[in-house]
Amino acid sequence: MEIDFKNIKVIGFDADDTLWVNETYFRETEERFAELLEGYETKNKIDQELFKMEMANLELYGYGIKGFMLSMIESALDLSNYKVPQETISKILELGKKMISHPVELLDGVEEVLGKLENKYRLIVLTKGDLLDQERKLEKSGISKYFHHVEVLSDKKENNYSNLLEHLEIDVDEFLMIGNSLKSDVLPILNIGARAVHVPFHTTWAHEMVNDPQQVNNHLKLNSLKDILKYLEIDED
Amino acid sequence: MEIDFKNIKVIGFDADDTLWVNETYFRETEERFAELLEGYETKNKIDQELFKMEMANLELYGYGIKGFMLSMIESALDLSNYKVPQETISKILELGKKMISHPVELLDGVEEVLGKLENKYRLIVLTKGDLLDQERKLEKSGISKYFHHVEVLSDKKENNYSNLLEHLEIDVDEFLMIGNSLKSDVLPILNIGARAVHVPFHTTWAHEMVNDPQQVNNHLKLNSLKDILKYLEIDED
Repeated sequence: MEIDFKNIKVIGFDADDTLWVNETYFRETEERFAELLEGYETKNKIDQELFKMEMANLELYGYGIKGFMLSMIESALDLSNYKVPQETISKILELGKKMISHPVELLDGVEEVLGKLENKYRLIVLTKGDLLDQERKLEKSGISKYFHHVEVLSDKKENNYSNLLEHLEIDVDEFLMIGNSLKSDVLPILNIGARAVHVPFHTTWAHEMVNDPQQVNNHLKLNSLKDILKYLEIDED
Repeated sequence: MEIDFKNIKVIGFDADDTLWVNETYFRETEERFAELLEGYETKNKIDQELFKMEMANLELYGYGIKGFMLSMIESALDLSNYKVPQETISKILELGKKMISHPVELLDGVEEVLGKLENKYRLIVLTKGDLLDQERKLEKSGISKYFHHVEVLSDKKENNYSNLLEHLEIDVDEFLMIGNSLKSDVLPILNIGARAVHVPFHTTWAHEMVNDPQQVNNHLKLNSLKDILKYLEIDED
């Protein structure tokens, strides 16, 4: 589809699974969690119950690894009818701590794209999740130098975006958001009248799924972040 | 001591134990935690070990209730040599969830002081801790209307303050910080050349203690937030 990228002055980047790998580590930890509990339920049931627990706790815990750890522990107690060995609880804590201290892996082309855009646009990071986790990942990533501003939001709904753009004095007509989640990075952005680019990641958390992705229109979908350069008329050399 | 409050244009307020009660709930939860584990160790030892665990995990988890919950669970496993009943782990989760959903209790005089200062100063909230928790408390408190800006920081060291003041284009000479913690709200503020008011809360977390409070000078210490009004030459009617 045709989208006009004229007048864009500020580009917002989602972080997890847009700039660096994230969902993969959650999937791997869920695999380990299911192995720890395989004596109590099928893998399928364990996956389902953990997801249900995360959703039940989302309002209370918000997004991020610590809430995920607490939901894993609560699920382990539930699924085992309080029979899960104490050592398994300890292993769950270890799984979570490993996630928190995992090295940051930038996605393909990120540094190249940021380097080419930084002189022509004001670049900002708009991510949701745990404040300390996200600051730490940005620090470890080595790419914080490209950004004018970093905002960690407790959620990414229309009003979170509207409030932030107002606060940063960014006109919606001049704002482009780039991210991997139709639900969090594309839909609310289109709804407030700004423009959006969707760069899917190979793995999407069930909570970030939209019911009918075909119905989300008026945004540009790209296979790779690098493809944005030609739309923004930046020389790919 | 004499401090000149002329030229102050922006006042930053700490939130926990400055605007509303916080530490009290942590102390109460620690009491319940010690009761749950009283079969394994003395109350004194349990308190000490939990604090040690919190400090060991601080870099990984940061400040806030979720990290505190995870440290309680890890301490319970440690202190009981993995013998703590699974039901006790479940009770620890419940204690934490109760803390998160606790109603907000404003401290004495807060609303009156904010109401009198809001027209003469730009008021901001500078708090550390969990993003979602702090946003939720501000929302529940009903006092968000008084503030031009709310910033949740992952920590409150000199560079956190310097970066924020620069970002918000606030001159250190025009900035006054008010808070209950000498370590987090007063010392770093004095070190960057801004002014600070210390309003102690009756309970201070060991981690927020300074070794020699007598050595912290050049700030104003007040018994109650309301006392700030006369220093800022606001009519107390």
